[in-house]
Amino acid sequence: MVAAPASLDKLCINSIRMLAVDAVNKSKSGHPGLPMGCAPMGYTLWDKFLNHNPKNPKWFNRDRFVLSAGHGCMLLYALLHLTGYESVTIEDIKQFRQWGARTPGHPETFETPGVEVTAGPLGAGISNAVGLAIAESHLAAKFNKPDFSLVDHFTYVIMGDGCNQEGVASEACSLAGHLKLGKLIALYDDNHITIDGKTDVSFTEDVLKRYESYGWHVQHVSDGNTDVDAIAKAIQQAKEVTDKPSIIKITTTIGYGSPNKSDTAGVHGAPLGEEEAELTRQALGWSYGPFEVPQEAYDQLRQAIDKGAKSEAVWNELLESYRSKYPDESIEFERMLRGELPSNWDQSLPSYTPEDKGLATRKHSQICLGALGPNLPELIGGSADLTHSNYTDIQGETGSFQAESPEKRYLHFGVREHAMAAILNGIAYHGSGLIPYGGTFLVFADYMRGSMRLSALSELGVIYVLTHDSIGVGEDGPTHQPIETIPSLRAMPNMLVFRPGDGNETSGAYKLAIQNRTRPSALCLSRQGMPNQENSSIEKVSFGGYVLEDCEGTPELILIGTGSELYLCVDAAKELTKQGRKVRVVSMPCVELFEEQSSSYKEEVLPSDVRKRIVVEAAETFGWHKYIGLDGDSITMSGFGASAPGGTCMEKFGFTLENVLNTANNLLT
Amino acid sequence: MVAAPASLDKLCINSIRMLAVDAVNKSKSGHPGLPMGCAPMGYTLWDKFLNHNPKNPKWFNRDRFVLSAGHGCMLLYALLHLTGYESVTIEDIKQFRQWGARTPGHPETFETPGVEVTAGPLGAGISNAVGLAIAESHLAAKFNKPDFSLVDHFTYVIMGDGCNQEGVASEACSLAGHLKLGKLIALYDDNHITIDGKTDVSFTEDVLKRYESYGWHVQHVSDGNTDVDAIAKAIQQAKEVTDKPSIIKITTTIGYGSPNKSDTAGVHGAPLGEEEAELTRQALGWSYGPFEVPQEAYDQLRQAIDKGAKSEAVWNELLESYRSKYPDESIEFERMLRGELPSNWDQSLPSYTPEDKGLATRKHSQICLGALGPNLPELIGGSADLTHSNYTDIQGETGSFQAESPEKRYLHFGVREHAMAAILNGIAYHGSGLIPYGGTFLVFADYMRGSMRLSALSELGVIYVLTHDSIGVGEDGPTHQPIETIPSLRAMPNMLVFRPGDGNETSGAYKLAIQNRTRPSALCLSRQGMPNQENSSIEKVSFGGYVLEDCEGTPELILIGTGSELYLCVDAAKELTKQGRKVRVVSMPCVELFEEQSSSYKEEVLPSDVRKRIVVEAAETFGWHKYIGLDGDSITMSGFGASAPGGTCMEKFGFTLENVLNTANNLLT
Repeated sequence: MVAAPASLDKLCINSIRMLAVDAVNKSKSGHPGLPMGCAPMGYTLWDKFLNHNPKNPKWFNRDRFVLSAGHGCMLLYALLHLTGYESVTIEDIKQFRQWGARTPGHPETFETPGVEVTAGPLGAGISNAVGLAIAESHLAAKFNKPDFSLVDHFTYVIMGDGCNQEGVASEACSLAGHLKLGKLIALYDDNHITIDGKTDVSFTEDVLKRYESYGWHVQHVSDGNTDVDAIAKAIQQAKEVTDKPSIIKITTTIGYGSPNKSDTAGVHGAPLGEEEAELTRQALGWSYGPFEVPQEAYDQLRQAIDKGAKSEAVWNELLESYRSKYPDESIEFERMLRGELPSNWDQSLPSYTPEDKGLATRKHSQICLGALGPNLPELIGGSADLTHSNYTDIQGETGSFQAESPEKRYLHFGVREHAMAAILNGIAYHGSGLIPYGGTFLVFADYMRGSMRLSALSELGVIYVLTHDSIGVGEDGPTHQPIETIPSLRAMPNMLVFRPGDGNETSGAYKLAIQNRTRPSALCLSRQGMPNQENSSIEKVSFGGYVLEDCEGTPELILIGTGSELYLCVDAAKELTKQGRKVRVVSMPCVELFEEQSSSYKEEVLPSDVRKRIVVEAAETFGWHKYIGLDGDSITMSGFGASAPGGTCMEKFGFTLENVLNTANNLLT
Repeated sequence: MVAAPASLDKLCINSIRMLAVDAVNKSKSGHPGLPMGCAPMGYTLWDKFLNHNPKNPKWFNRDRFVLSAGHGCMLLYALLHLTGYESVTIEDIKQFRQWGARTPGHPETFETPGVEVTAGPLGAGISNAVGLAIAESHLAAKFNKPDFSLVDHFTYVIMGDGCNQEGVASEACSLAGHLKLGKLIALYDDNHITIDGKTDVSFTEDVLKRYESYGWHVQHVSDGNTDVDAIAKAIQQAKEVTDKPSIIKITTTIGYGSPNKSDTAGVHGAPLGEEEAELTRQALGWSYGPFEVPQEAYDQLRQAIDKGAKSEAVWNELLESYRSKYPDESIEFERMLRGELPSNWDQSLPSYTPEDKGLATRKHSQICLGALGPNLPELIGGSADLTHSNYTDIQGETGSFQAESPEKRYLHFGVREHAMAAILNGIAYHGSGLIPYGGTFLVFADYMRGSMRLSALSELGVIYVLTHDSIGVGEDGPTHQPIETIPSLRAMPNMLVFRPGDGNETSGAYKLAIQNRTRPSALCLSRQGMPNQENSSIEKVSFGGYVLEDCEGTPELILIGTGSELYLCVDAAKELTKQGRKVRVVSMPCVELFEEQSSSYKEEVLPSDVRKRIVVEAAETFGWHKYIGLDGDSITMSGFGASAPGGTCMEKFGFTLENVLNTANNLLT
């Protein structure tokens, strides 16, 4: 590869800047400021360092690049285009932010090959990057051999002031420092501007000192607008520091080149306009028309195509000889990369009969993890400092992923729920077959909801192990008792929310969560025990809802139950049957999957003309009227819980056989 | 006040420790480790520094004390009891964590007078404390005079490793440093233990260096188990540093005194058990029985009663002379303290007719803030760096709350949504009549949901200004387009969720949000414009839902609309009426308030026997079946949005007159 002379550097950098200016102007919407300011660091990184193959964006061993400041996506689109990715043609750039375009307003993995993470909500990208670096480090420890660096790439990030203000980034970067993720390199666009104006209205901390406190290697490039050499030198140095993540603060001018708008909040998120674009052209000495890229810039940047092809070819050769020298490892490695589950992965998932001791579903969950662990080496996860409450450990395994033991797959996230979710997303984004899971109390889903939403949006099969799922939490009281949490997760598109009602349903929920690699799952699990049901099964969970107990003929009443309240429905049905009533019990461990069944199946389970229906769930009623309609009733929660033993809470809030019977009899008369 | 000799210090400290041990043992549930480790700092702070009046927990000028590590609540209950608060008797302590007790498993303001903030979710308390300190600083700047320090108190916090790992605390403490909140003093319980074990499994950053990077004054007390003098000296020094918040890292041993469990995760959240309690008694040289407090300890600590009475009396005298010297200010000050709104507060809220230009409701919101501002001096708020998008400024006012201008009431929170919400809660907890509001994009409610939940639980009248409330966001795409956000907020108990459909409804929403001082409000506001309705009004919003347009006689179809889709219902009704159909339009700006109306009113608006109902709202359907039942239909969202101009999104996702008409006709045939 030929190094570019300074003038060519400038040409390339200005190509990025002007593509951003033109695209935002044409779409009359977007963020030109960041791409204009970050063009030099973007160019330097992509042209001189990034190991990638534009013709195969999914090549496994590529360096990962994350634009954490996702609003500046025209920087990324310009780089993808200029280095030869087919996913972003000049036409795509002209369609910036339009319906159906591959150049949406924030980068989205599912729209544009070459985009590594869906960014937009600030702080998410850098936190995902920590997950990418963890995945790399873990897989390297697992598969590399003294003579084979099969897994060996850097994770680069461009982040802004916004990312550095977000708590999720603080959490993730503190953990990254603890884990000494030496191949994580962040370029911090220090441009002094946020939407509200100068950063000095709210953000005057010493960012590098903070990163130092986390254990990062820190550097500062004072002229990020023109000093390509200084940027390159800093990146090189960061690469050489292998025992710490690195941050390079690069001071830039937002909207660099725009005579009247640079260094103002005005250029952050609004088009320059035709006139200012023209003045910018003049200021940058840019003689090309809108969307015109000088051939020399293409020629320079598209050396990435050859270089990338060669890199991949060399790696493919390496893999080839790894195959012969380490056949077992290579079979597993390649299976994971294909995203295939091992044939026997679910063989040890336990099933239960009513004779088996009734356990808490969090305990069943622990048994499932223990059963899956040995057969599913790609399972990796942990807890946000609640291991012994969430039971997220893989029984039989010891040790955790640490700087000294990256081959281990248990992650201690610390008390950092939001970072946990973002890191799990990052592990999933890595695309190497790893199946990430993470645990906390269900109520703290609220702390990580921003990243759970991104799991759902970006189609990442992350598994959230959310224990202590109701007022059954007991003494910890209302701050720890989820009420609205389950409905709020059910409202989220593409999120599978499981609330299993016994051991079989827990095994079934795990089976589905593992199988669903493009949908995240939220497993809502009890603190307290419950009996195993006669007619539950692993398989039935896949229908989302099913008839657990039935009467002869058409029921006059349907009881719908989930989780720790399912047994109440069963007990009530038995009692009502004795009273001569015709009662059906429907178990509904996953509303989303039930919704996806055929109309005829749904009609079979919940016949339209049986309108007397009662749902029993120790959570907010919200959402259940879809099944109980205007004529049914509910035994649910309508306010917050209280601090008392869990059994007392259940009783005081009406989750008793007596109350189910009374409610049923009221509805039936 | 008499200083205690060292032996008496020890007696008091061990009284705290053993109350915690006994209470947790008796309840068989709870967290003894923190109270045992933090007893020396708790005692030192409360006995030697805290300015409070146990007989009047609401005395305005008291120092605020926040136990951010809320699980250690027995520390707080012990201190409240030992210093003479009537809210925590020895009987209350014996009822620790039981149904109906004033000693719940985490401290809750609404259960126990003397508890300043509801803590439990880690990171919340310290972030609330930043809000308390902001409130103090603002009110001091507003009401104090050279000769009158009417508002003059410290805000003290005890926080643990968990709080220091949570991102919300990072955000809030960075802002606190920026704002130079000199009267905020945090004691950091550095005990090396979290639930997963030693902190070195996940948390090895240099915490004090981080706080230094934020601009805090930092100190370290290396023996927090016994060195009361060192703790006292450090607190004294922190008080003297008035231009920076202070953190004192106090190294302690969790469960100090327990021979076999101290310094282990086992003592964090589980009872010691009878045997270990006995061994602890021996180790501490404690000869008293369970729940027995030596009289000398009471005598020492209950000096707080006299001292507090005197402090309040002195302050009352100060207020008395302030009244005569500054009558206008004192009238305002005391009105605010009583929580009374000024008589004219809502007089300038605008109303509209269809002739008025249709605006975005975020624009109407800005007009409301501008109308309320001059009449409502207690209104204080800002935006998480989206001022010019949320329109959260109070028009006509300049400048913002900064270290140099604490009298200003506009807050630049930076890109820190979660801290914003926690700080708004803190301002509300201050109990001084301030009405806090804060803005961000609706979709980022997910980032602050943990604290929004605490607003709702703790009955804080915080106003959330949440703009860009649907796919109408447009080009920013699905990461920025709320879909499930509105339903997820509606699912939250005690949260008023407003989605106004025009100017009148926006004014009405503000009126109700201001009036509701014990319920938070989420105002969901559009980016894009919509017409003003003929029959909307400020008053009607108080019903939550009302008949906006009606037909003669019983309707055959009811269209239910909210926000930017309301006009579609009105237009469709007109068209359907032309076609001879009998159609009613119900506007539903606040589901929660509608639910609170009488059954007869609800029946009037939505007659049970009119089952053909269609809801039109550009959000997830989840929750609407309560009104459309099993026989209605909906024009809502079932998946994520897309990046394209807002109008295009609306059209592509079916929010068109044509689609409403088709859906109506399908239902009617």
